[in-house]
Amino acid sequence: MDEDILYHLDLGTKTHNLPAMFGDIKFVCVGGSANRMKAFAQFMHKELGFEGDGKDVKDICAGTDRYSMYKVGPVLSVSHGMGIPSISIMLHELIKLLHHAKCRGVTIIRIGTSGGLGIEPGSVVITDTALDSFFKPQFEQIILDNVVVRSTELDKDLAEELLNCSKEIHDFPTMIGHTMCTYDFYEGQGRLDGALCSFSSEKKLEYLKRAYNAGVRNIEMESTVFAAMCGLCGLKAAVVCVTLLNRLEGDQITIPHEVLLEYQQRPQQLISIFIKKRLGLHNQNNLLDNAFFLSN
Amino acid sequence: MDEDILYHLDLGTKTHNLPAMFGDIKFVCVGGSANRMKAFAQFMHKELGFEGDGKDVKDICAGTDRYSMYKVGPVLSVSHGMGIPSISIMLHELIKLLHHAKCRGVTIIRIGTSGGLGIEPGSVVITDTALDSFFKPQFEQIILDNVVVRSTELDKDLAEELLNCSKEIHDFPTMIGHTMCTYDFYEGQGRLDGALCSFSSEKKLEYLKRAYNAGVRNIEMESTVFAAMCGLCGLKAAVVCVTLLNRLEGDQITIPHEVLLEYQQRPQQLISIFIKKRLGLHNQNNLLDNAFFLSN
Repeated sequence: MDEDILYHLDLGTKTHNLPAMFGDIKFVCVGGSANRMKAFAQFMHKELGFEGDGKDVKDICAGTDRYSMYKVGPVLSVSHGMGIPSISIMLHELIKLLHHAKCRGVTIIRIGTSGGLGIEPGSVVITDTALDSFFKPQFEQIILDNVVVRSTELDKDLAEELLNCSKEIHDFPTMIGHTMCTYDFYEGQGRLDGALCSFSSEKKLEYLKRAYNAGVRNIEMESTVFAAMCGLCGLKAAVVCVTLLNRLEGDQITIPHEVLLEYQQRPQQLISIFIKKRLGLHNQNNLLDNAFFLSN
Repeated sequence: MDEDILYHLDLGTKTHNLPAMFGDIKFVCVGGSANRMKAFAQFMHKELGFEGDGKDVKDICAGTDRYSMYKVGPVLSVSHGMGIPSISIMLHELIKLLHHAKCRGVTIIRIGTSGGLGIEPGSVVITDTALDSFFKPQFEQIILDNVVVRSTELDKDLAEELLNCSKEIHDFPTMIGHTMCTYDFYEGQGRLDGALCSFSSEKKLEYLKRAYNAGVRNIEMESTVFAAMCGLCGLKAAVVCVTLLNRLEGDQITIPHEVLLEYQQRPQQLISIFIKKRLGLHNQNNLLDNAFFLSN
């Protein structure tokens, strides 16, 4: 192609110097909410010790409201909206962007929120394999009118590395488990409180317990296509989601706003330690943190 | 339920007086982009003759960045993001909102952008039936781990009423046709320019031509679940999308930004006439418009 327009990112090969803008990217973090991905960029700005408070970090995709994108040194923070189709559009254009920018050795991590299954709200689940609604480790991609089945396994070493990072944070419940990915938040996840509901509370619990027995520890809406696309494109990928409730105990998210905000920061904290370790900055900052703590 | 928290709208039955806030709603317009739905609210503010320029119209869902919502008299304008899962979450919570608010006789219209099939870019397609990727007039909803098939027919009388409204605008190419709804913008719509592509240009064209022969005139990513859910909940519903390109001639959206903006306004113009006619305001405004025109 003479020109590649990354339409939903409002970027392009003729209008932007992508290697200059993005060539140094080593970590891409993606998440559903634009506000949360901005907050993550500001958090990384501070964690990586850059000057200023990072409040003025600029949305690279400001020309569109489909997605938001922030860059902090080697870290790119991108929002993807909700659901498989929304994240898949972003991933197609992001992966082309990384290709055009000639990035090498990129690690990509989805940091999100999810419903937990049989675990305490606030727990962080690192996904080893994403499962579909039928508990199968696969993603069915419709191509023209054929159904193509793709693997949804994630990088095992990366998952272990992330689990090890979690051990450095006090009182931070974290586990590796399967993540179920559905096309719908209400009927597709067995919620009784949608506008439509055709099943009983018993049927719901029977389904969720079968999911638990299949190894599912949390439920969200993007992991299968994320695992499949990143795998096919040779990107080392992980999914790290905090759980906002235990679905065996309810459907509605009733936790207070402050608790919700604290929970949402947990995947960000974990990824910050991971990135700082990879960059050889972690112990140094720890010392600084300790010094700060002692001097206060 | 004692309390219903509409989590992704940041509204609830205990925290908000939903009948007072929304009881007079008669028209709900939904679309993917938050900016576009704000612009539509401002446009309707002007078209319905309210005082002021409408620039300060408030986002009712400002407490969340998942969706945006604006109210202008009897018109509610709501964004839904991209793809079936994203619009389905919004519809579940919107339909519960209309129920809690005791709204009656509501018409709901999706105004969107789409890829055209064998028609001029800028044409507006009013959907009679939404089809899936296999050209079937159905939506497959996964409920627990069962696949339930739902009808995707839209209200025929409403589609005709909208087509009649289009005739009042000069040089406004509009038609009724089938709309194909896919789970993906790239591989799922036969695009050759995604990060992944496993088929030839010939296979793509063969597929798109079969779609055309099945009556498809445009392709988007939300209409099947929109038709299915609104149908089951007894809401009269329509889908009105402008086409940004002719997919038989290319994959990338290369039209200049100004043309894109003008195209995006076409469904809004059409819905404005429809709403004003329903409210008995149309001719009156026409007279005013003409008077304004003559006096200038």
